[in-house]
Amino acid sequence: MNKIKIGILGATGYTGLELVKILQHHPFAEIAFLSSQSYANQKFSDVFPSLKNICDDTLIEPEKTYSINVDCVFSCLPHGTSASLLIPFIEKKIKVIDLSADFRIKNTEEYQKWYKVQHPCPQFLNKSVFGLCEHYRNEISNADIIANPGCYATSIMLPLLPLFKDKSVKISFVISDSKSGVSGAGRSLKLTSHFVEAHENFSAYSIGHTHRHIAEIEQELSKAAQKKITITFCPHLIPTNRGILSTIYLIGINKTAEECFNILENSYKEEPFIRLRKGSDLPTTAGVVNTNYCDIAFACGSNKEEVICVSAIDNLIKGASGQAIQNMNIMFGFTETTGLK
Amino acid sequence: MNKIKIGILGATGYTGLELVKILQHHPFAEIAFLSSQSYANQKFSDVFPSLKNICDDTLIEPEKTYSINVDCVFSCLPHGTSASLLIPFIEKKIKVIDLSADFRIKNTEEYQKWYKVQHPCPQFLNKSVFGLCEHYRNEISNADIIANPGCYATSIMLPLLPLFKDKSVKISFVISDSKSGVSGAGRSLKLTSHFVEAHENFSAYSIGHTHRHIAEIEQELSKAAQKKITITFCPHLIPTNRGILSTIYLIGINKTAEECFNILENSYKEEPFIRLRKGSDLPTTAGVVNTNYCDIAFACGSNKEEVICVSAIDNLIKGASGQAIQNMNIMFGFTETTGLK
Amino acid sequence: MNKIKIGILGATGYTGLELVKILQHHPFAEIAFLSSQSYANQKFSDVFPSLKNICDDTLIEPEKTYSINVDCVFSCLPHGTSASLLIPFIEKKIKVIDLSADFRIKNTEEYQKWYKVQHPCPQFLNKSVFGLCEHYRNEISNADIIANPGCYATSIMLPLLPLFKDKSVKISFVISDSKSGVSGAGRSLKLTSHFVEAHENFSAYSIGHTHRHIAEIEQELSKAAQKKITITFCPHLIPTNRGILSTIYLIGINKTAEECFNILENSYKEEPFIRLRKGSDLPTTAGVVNTNYCDIAFACGSNKEEVICVSAIDNLIKGASGQAIQNMNIMFGFTETTGLK
Amino acid sequence: MNKIKIGILGATGYTGLELVKILQHHPFAEIAFLSSQSYANQKFSDVFPSLKNICDDTLIEPEKTYSINVDCVFSCLPHGTSASLLIPFIEKKIKVIDLSADFRIKNTEEYQKWYKVQHPCPQFLNKSVFGLCEHYRNEISNADIIANPGCYATSIMLPLLPLFKDKSVKISFVISDSKSGVSGAGRSLKLTSHFVEAHENFSAYSIGHTHRHIAEIEQELSKAAQKKITITFCPHLIPTNRGILSTIYLIGINKTAEECFNILENSYKEEPFIRLRKGSDLPTTAGVVNTNYCDIAFACGSNKEEVICVSAIDNLIKGASGQAIQNMNIMFGFTETTGLK
Repeated sequence: MNKIKIGILGATGYTGLELVKILQHHPFAEIAFLSSQSYANQKFSDVFPSLKNICDDTLIEPEKTYSINVDCVFSCLPHGTSASLLIPFIEKKIKVIDLSADFRIKNTEEYQKWYKVQHPCPQFLNKSVFGLCEHYRNEISNADIIANPGCYATSIMLPLLPLFKDKSVKISFVISDSKSGVSGAGRSLKLTSHFVEAHENFSAYSIGHTHRHIAEIEQELSKAAQKKITITFCPHLIPTNRGILSTIYLIGINKTAEECFNILENSYKEEPFIRLRKGSDLPTTAGVVNTNYCDIAFACGSNKEEVICVSAIDNLIKGASGQAIQNMNIMFGFTETTGLK
Repeated sequence: MNKIKIGILGATGYTGLELVKILQHHPFAEIAFLSSQSYANQKFSDVFPSLKNICDDTLIEPEKTYSINVDCVFSCLPHGTSASLLIPFIEKKIKVIDLSADFRIKNTEEYQKWYKVQHPCPQFLNKSVFGLCEHYRNEISNADIIANPGCYATSIMLPLLPLFKDKSVKISFVISDSKSGVSGAGRSLKLTSHFVEAHENFSAYSIGHTHRHIAEIEQELSKAAQKKITITFCPHLIPTNRGILSTIYLIGINKTAEECFNILENSYKEEPFIRLRKGSDLPTTAGVVNTNYCDIAFACGSNKEEVICVSAIDNLIKGASGQAIQNMNIMFGFTETTGLK
Repeated sequence: MNKIKIGILGATGYTGLELVKILQHHPFAEIAFLSSQSYANQKFSDVFPSLKNICDDTLIEPEKTYSINVDCVFSCLPHGTSASLLIPFIEKKIKVIDLSADFRIKNTEEYQKWYKVQHPCPQFLNKSVFGLCEHYRNEISNADIIANPGCYATSIMLPLLPLFKDKSVKISFVISDSKSGVSGAGRSLKLTSHFVEAHENFSAYSIGHTHRHIAEIEQELSKAAQKKITITFCPHLIPTNRGILSTIYLIGINKTAEECFNILENSYKEEPFIRLRKGSDLPTTAGVVNTNYCDIAFACGSNKEEVICVSAIDNLIKGASGQAIQNMNIMFGFTETTGLK
Repeated sequence: MNKIKIGILGATGYTGLELVKILQHHPFAEIAFLSSQSYANQKFSDVFPSLKNICDDTLIEPEKTYSINVDCVFSCLPHGTSASLLIPFIEKKIKVIDLSADFRIKNTEEYQKWYKVQHPCPQFLNKSVFGLCEHYRNEISNADIIANPGCYATSIMLPLLPLFKDKSVKISFVISDSKSGVSGAGRSLKLTSHFVEAHENFSAYSIGHTHRHIAEIEQELSKAAQKKITITFCPHLIPTNRGILSTIYLIGINKTAEECFNILENSYKEEPFIRLRKGSDLPTTAGVVNTNYCDIAFACGSNKEEVICVSAIDNLIKGASGQAIQNMNIMFGFTETTGLK
């Protein structure tokens, strides 16, 4: 079988690194190019010495990638830049999987409000599919453009979407208290990711209605519920490299924790990457790190109308590159778990 | 000035260590005995080598402490044992500060329900004062028995009590998503505190209405509000040695974040150990570790009737030994900040 | 192709967990039993929740394993116990790979001196092969008993053995300053592995001529050099989960760093799991964690006759379970890298 | 008693922060200015929120400091810049304590060789005193310029200087395998201090004869021994915020570990900040962090002529700001431990 040829734009961040690592073990895909503006002409293994002898490809400048023959392009570039650099591939009908937010928000005004830039190619927005595999599998299989979901958003939508899709469930308030390892802030240097500042520390940030992932979460929950849903979302920084744990409070809910569990069990019973946990067997970040799993559990709150949900994912895998490969597998007709188990 | 003489029961845990460290710098108090069952006859600095040349006292068995002349006894023993071993001191009218939960819960049935043991000396319960210094200063100054508050409870009650005492504030649901460093689980060996299990991990535990600190939080909030208050409380384990951060969601509240801030500012304007923070200057655990401060901030949620509160303390200091010394200072008429700044 | 059947004794430690994880991806081997005394009758995924849906096998008591049909048994038991429980398998001519020290030391007096127990089955010692794959590949391919090398020892012997085998190299003093993550101390509870004690700490231990790995290192270096070699070995504890980095000082050596590099390059040029690094591209633990690689570099010291060598491995993989699988691959004629890349 | 007035240049790095924290508790000194080029006009507590209500001084530009009346100036600036900006203070006979390397190296050619810049004021070099308090107390008490020793250098010189000063001791090779927490690399952003790169990692750097601290170590050891001494020095990065542990190998030494211990015990018996440890009670970084102590132990190597020494300090305190205050105490005639216990 001929392997499909993969290009990766912005390959030298942590999501690029994960894509390259997963693709080393993928039997049906191979890397055709890795691009980077700042590290162009260096070997990938010079940037990431752990990949010496594993991936020694030379990084090329983005503009040199357009002439290379590929079947699928992943973009790990920042929003704004990402969609711009993907345009030529989209126009050539090459399948693209965008790990940035550029194709996630269907409403361009919402996009501009949250991301503070004009959308570079709104004409392609309605061709793009929100790549939450467990919920849009059919659309993904026919899509040319995948908007790979955000990491926090994935950890929140996977447990909540089956509840919001279920017409018998009523919920008054949704609060997600989410915690992420430092790799979620990327590889670029900033004081909050400086070792001495983050280590032996734990902090909240962007609290209130300010974090950009709110846009996609509210879009998808509202779509599922067929009415406007708002969410209170508080992200926190954990002194770990990887992992997201979201503790989600459903207030004024007319179901018990057990009923919520049953709805998810029913919805996800065939899903290879969702694991429901019960009782004291709660999700932990260590339990999912380096995997494409999303672990989920429910418990009752102190009041009748309160249900607590805990979900955990690896922010770089199920929250980014693993989910991106899962999308690729669906798009190209490979078994969905290929390269991911 | 004669220094008061201090005894510490159960001195070889982390709260005992902090007491000893603080007392080294206290100008008006000196250690008369340090007791430990398991390390009896060893030097304190053999158990904690960092204290070599600083505190080389020999640990003695608890039963040998009763004949030693002291003015104040701190107990760092586990609940149940703690009150039992304190009885002889209480009977001799020696002031005691109990860091266990034994004197916190006024209702013995509640105590038994949460702590699964019969209270060893219910006759002393109504003589004890809940040692949350900022709220019970007068009672503390005349007390013989102090129930030093729990660490999580302190991080939740300090921001909430002024709101619940204010008759104009209405709140429908209180949720505290709290996170603690591993020292909160003590120095005794358990798998969840094993380095390899806790490091590069983040997890929830005792979720639902199960964690024992709920009892004292609900007791104190209900007392302030003069009606029954329930709280949904979810503790989490942070891979740090120290620090608690509580993110508290007030749902169905009739005040804005700014109004809450103003209520606390007014309530705490003279308090030396409360720092209110504003805007993006949010509390962090690193900002309070090794201090007796409690840092507090407020922000609005996504819906009108939601306010988010973030508080941070050092679990071993403001959440335990620092607050205990603050109680001692009040009881003995020393300036409240002595030894704590 | 029929898969070979694998048994694992003492499966619930960290090396057992790594074996199980590697075997999930091994195309030619499958697990026949997992045994544990203390966790018997529990699921493996109850002990390690991260393996839910991946390995849900029930753990059985060691004595029940003897009737199960297997082709190869790994033992992750502690020394002493390990050889004792392996005897029945050895007698049935089942291939065994012992991750304990029991078959490493050829001289039973040396064994008893370092390990403080009598050897349980000295009659099998001369049938066992020291499983350092890169140096004993031929013997391993015909062996029935493999003594899998110690983790520290592997990190020291891999860089040094080619030098000691080379008759032109003279070295007066060998010093290895080695550092290991906490998983090297195992999963059993002890104060030095307690999170609060190990985190934000770095310490030396067992310095002087006291650490047991010295026995196998000196045995193998002496064999290579054909004369008695002693080594000064100082282990240290790193506050990480995994990884060993050894900084080795060769004093009174008649070669330069570059010449040492060339000797290793020549010796290891075909080796799939040895990576030589040059210049500022030094080995790091993060560069080898979760892989079976050993990374090695050389640099000159401040004096002419000093060469510094740095090596890094994952203590649980190349230092234990990965190397054990590599041994299994050699014994059963599989491609040596199967399941390990 | 009038307090002396202190200025701090470059106050917004980690050593500046430590100076400010120590000075809060110093009864005889008070801060007159804190300067910073990049944070000028911000409050110190905006840069370090943990110091809110503790030090809210406004940072001023360096050029505005010259008109402020001070008794002593500390410089936490980088080498080159440091001496340049100190010149006006030196010329006004104000006592200066330079935490950079600028006044450490007496030979300007050596300085230029290691630091790649011309010395900004060689005319002051012979007026400066190397501020290793335990060894230059008399000179320090009369000095106008103190060259505060480097952090690694302090951890190596304190255990070695008594041995090199003792004429009966012969040593052929000195190797220091040193490990430092990440704060040793400063607060400026760099990839090696990025959380994700440093956490769960351990690495060597600047190995061979390349690290700048070698210059001052060899200068001081040679001065003590009255002959040219060279040292092989390998620094490593520990994933902790603070602490240095040096494991020092003395090869070809004519003394036992016990004899070395006795030489130090004799030399340091009156020293308040040196703690000698014995047997399995080895120095650890956690044992000295947040203190001005240097802990030291000795052990024998595997060969007769080998002695191993382990020393530990807090790199920011005894290795920088604590030692700087100790120097200030000596210069101004305060009890040497003031503010440091």
